[in-house]
Order: sequence, then structure tokens, then C-alpha cells
Amino acid sequence: MRLVSFQLNDGTQSYGVIEGDAIRAADTALTSKYADLRAVLTAGATAELAGSTGPVLALADVTLLSPLPNPDKIICIGLNYMSHIKETGRDKPKHPSIFTRYPSSVIGHDVPLVRPKASQDFDYEGELAVIIGKEGRHIAQADAWDHIAGYSCFNDGSIRDYQIHTSQFWPGKSFDDSGSMGPWIVTADDLPDVTEQTLTTRINGNVEQQSKLDDLAISIPEIIAYVSTVTKLLPGDVIATGTPGGVGKFRKPQLYMKPGDVAEVEITGIGILRNGVVDEA
Amino acid sequence: MRLVSFQLNDGTQSYGVIEGDAIRAADTALTSKYADLRAVLTAGATAELAGSTGPVLALADVTLLSPLPNPDKIICIGLNYMSHIKETGRDKPKHPSIFTRYPSSVIGHDVPLVRPKASQDFDYEGELAVIIGKEGRHIAQADAWDHIAGYSCFNDGSIRDYQIHTSQFWPGKSFDDSGSMGPWIVTADDLPDVTEQTLTTRINGNVEQQSKLDDLAISIPEIIAYVSTVTKLLPGDVIATGTPGGVGKFRKPQLYMKPGDVAEVEITGIGILRNGVVDEA
Repeated sequence: MRLVSFQLNDGTQSYGVIEGDAIRAADTALTSKYADLRAVLTAGATAELAGSTGPVLALADVTLLSPLPNPDKIICIGLNYMSHIKETGRDKPKHPSIFTRYPSSVIGHDVPLVRPKASQDFDYEGELAVIIGKEGRHIAQADAWDHIAGYSCFNDGSIRDYQIHTSQFWPGKSFDDSGSMGPWIVTADDLPDVTEQTLTTRINGNVEQQSKLDDLAISIPEIIAYVSTVTKLLPGDVIATGTPGGVGKFRKPQLYMKPGDVAEVEITGIGILRNGVVDEA
Repeated sequence: MRLVSFQLNDGTQSYGVIEGDAIRAADTALTSKYADLRAVLTAGATAELAGSTGPVLALADVTLLSPLPNPDKIICIGLNYMSHIKETGRDKPKHPSIFTRYPSSVIGHDVPLVRPKASQDFDYEGELAVIIGKEGRHIAQADAWDHIAGYSCFNDGSIRDYQIHTSQFWPGKSFDDSGSMGPWIVTADDLPDVTEQTLTTRINGNVEQQSKLDDLAISIPEIIAYVSTVTKLLPGDVIATGTPGGVGKFRKPQLYMKPGDVAEVEITGIGILRNGVVDEA
């Protein structure tokens, strides 16, 4: 099942499931119980959503939002693919390197990423996003897969000079509208072999990153166990699992995103997250 | 004016203002319009709250929450007092070092801090918290004070070994119930000379940190200007402005908090934030 959040032309936000090439919107019985997709996940009601009798909407008639516009947490793992670790000159880590993004920094599919006024060092980072479906603290690695609702594509767009102003990455990772997630969440039952999938990042059609998802230095169960040692994970929480080698910062010459560019993060079994780029107004 | 959020014995949460030694709770006209203190700040309705005709409650009859239990952001500045920068062996920074905490890591006054099972390296960090009252992006330093609703005491409780597992501080700063804010927010009109105030952290009555608030390497207006370059600040956002020298990690021997201890963060003109310490259940 593919879960989406969207906005209508009148500004109304809702959610639904992909049916063929269109969206089956949540019906009023669902929306009166569950305000948004996060509430659906919290209630464990995706099967109920699958039976929606709401209207069918063409994708072209809505604006896709991040599938989870309002998660409690967006937790990002840095330096987690061996290919990216090698290009930064580091050793394999013992622990996940963790920073956070605010939801205001994450837009949906086919909405333009915003290059800020403050910097032109605007880099792409294609990633797999893991969506939590069941709350838990101190989750054992063996139980971690049971806590996953599904997966999405993620572009952890980064303002590189702000990222290295100090040792802490947050400023480079939280510019408004600088990252994206989508186009939808593929539920975990539809993607049992997620680590066998391949991630590809394209800028203007050129492949800039490509890796199987089994190259993680810290695995998905290890990440979930570690994070849930720190804090309770909640349904709808997003964990962006890190990016493979090939980011723009380490290209010679460097390859940064600029207005008019098109960034795509594709993961086999999930889909293609595509975003144009504009300058901050 | 001193603004509080609290929970009654029946689990109901509400808010109000301090009146003498008690709380004047928000009346139903207020709570029907504004669900919580964040909504009051968003509406710019603190004057309306001051006129509440709600019941007067003894402080002993409620549990104080963090004055803002559900902020959009809690942004923390690391390494920002020259005395703390010196004890870590670093130079004066050009930019603020920024990490985030989730609200689940911040409890209110007189509720016990939780030392996690995962570590005994549980350190205190007394800080001034700045509460945003007016939204803004690209806020000029000259306008920054106009965006502040008020101030509170903050204990940026830190799990030191998790903080240095990697270069990113987040894991050491987000353990559930490991930090605190309160006891209340003093509105900015009642504290025009905030940088003239003095912060004192006591553990079991012993003074462990003491500094005037004018020792910041990056000033409050500089922090607000920098953060708002990255993302829009919203009413209710919390900025913890960093801690002075004297943290437990750099004591010889190290001084970590343990069950039975009492941690106090006092700021003149604001009050005393006091928390016991218990082990995670």
C-alpha cells in the first residue's frame, strides 16, 4: 500500500492511498476519526484506510505534501554508508551520528526545494526514510522491524557552509524547504526486502549517487535500538538513514543545486521523489 | 507576569499565571479559545490571560509542567559562555553551536529528572531559556528583543558518554525526562535587563555554576538572527542559550547527578527551577 498526504487547491490538507495512477482520498468517516496520516499510523488503522470510499483524485490535481507533514521527530543519521564514510576520509563508526530536522525543512514530491539567500552551497543527499508504526522505548534489534510502518525516499538537502560553521550539523540541515520526502510511504508488508533495494540520486538526469541499501555501516535495527535507548519512538516518527557516496560537496569540481535544476531520489520498490530548485523569494 | 503550565491530579493539563504564592488558572473563556500556553503566545493574548477569572490553585495541589510542554522547537546553544568555552579548551566561536532537544526530554519544576539505565554520566547545565513571542524569519539583531515573549530557567541535562559517541551531541541531549524548564516564564516586560541577571546552579545546595548572563560569546540578538536565517521562529519556540563553566564533566573528580540529588537552576529576576533525580524505572 502507498500512503500519501496532499493539499487541494483550496488549501485543505488530507491523505489517502495510491490506487492505480490516482489517489483514493480518505473518506469522511476516516477523516473525522483521524486528522492526518500520523493519526492513522498511531491508531494502527492503515487497513481501514485501504477500504476508504473517498473520492478518486488525479495526482495532477493535488499538491503532494511530505507523507508525514507533522511528525513528532525527524531523526537523521549522518555518515552511514561506507561509500560516503570513505569519501569524507573517516573510519567506520561504532555509533550512529544523529542530528534532527524540523518538519518545516521537509517538503513533498514535485514541490521546489528552496536554495536560501544565505548560501549557494546547496547539496543533495538521497536517503531511505524509515517510518515508525509502533511506539517503543528500548526496542531490541530483533524486534526493530516490527516497529516499522513503511519506507519513503528522502532528500536530506544540506547547506554545506552552515553545516560546518561549528561541529554541530543542525544549521546546515534545517533551512526551511531545503529537503523533501515522498512521493509516498510504501508500507513495510509491500517491501519485506528493503535492504535489497537500490537507491539512485539524479541531478538533471545524471546519476550522482547509487548504492544498494545494504551498505549501511549501522543497520536499520541497530539505529532503531540506539535511538529508542534515548527516547520513545512514536508512530509517524521519521528516521532518515544516511546517504551514500557521491554528494556534491566532495565532487571535483563541487556540484551544488541551483535554480532550474531537478533532483531525483529513486529507490527501487518505492518510487521517485522529484523536486525542482528555486531561489528563496 | 509569570506564566505556568500545570497538570491536575486527574491528569487534566492547563495553564495560568502566578498570583502571589498561587496560580490563577485560565478561565473557560480562555481555555476554549487557547488550548495551551503556546496558543496564548501565538495569539498574543498574555494580557487577556492576566485578566483570567479562573480558580486560584495552590502550587502544592498541581504538578508544574515545562511552561511550554509542546513547543515547535527547542533549540540549544552549546559552548556559549566564555567560562565554559575555556574549560573545554576551545576558542571563542564565530557562530552559535546548535543542537536540538525534543519536548519529551524536558520536564517541569519539582518533577524528578531521570538518570537513564544506559549511563551514569548524567550532568547538569544551568541555562537561560529565551521564549519566542512573535514569529519571524531573517530577524535583524536590532529587532530581536521584540520577538521575545519571556524567559525561564533551563537545565540542559546531558548524558555525557552518549553526547560524545560521535561528533553530534543529540543522543546525549535528548534522553526522555533528562532536562527541565521552569518554574515559569517571566514575561519580557518584567525583565528588561535580562543580561544583568545572574545564573547559579546548585547540586545538593552547593554552588557549581555561577555567572552573570552577560558572559555569552554569541549574544541573544545574534542567536535569534542566526537561527531565523535558517528557519522561521514561531511563538513558543524555546532557545536555551548555553551554560557557564562548572559542569560536572570537567570537575576533578567528575560530579554527576545520581538518585536522591537535588539540582537547582536559579536566575535572579526569574526564580528557582528545582528537580530531584531518580533512576529510570
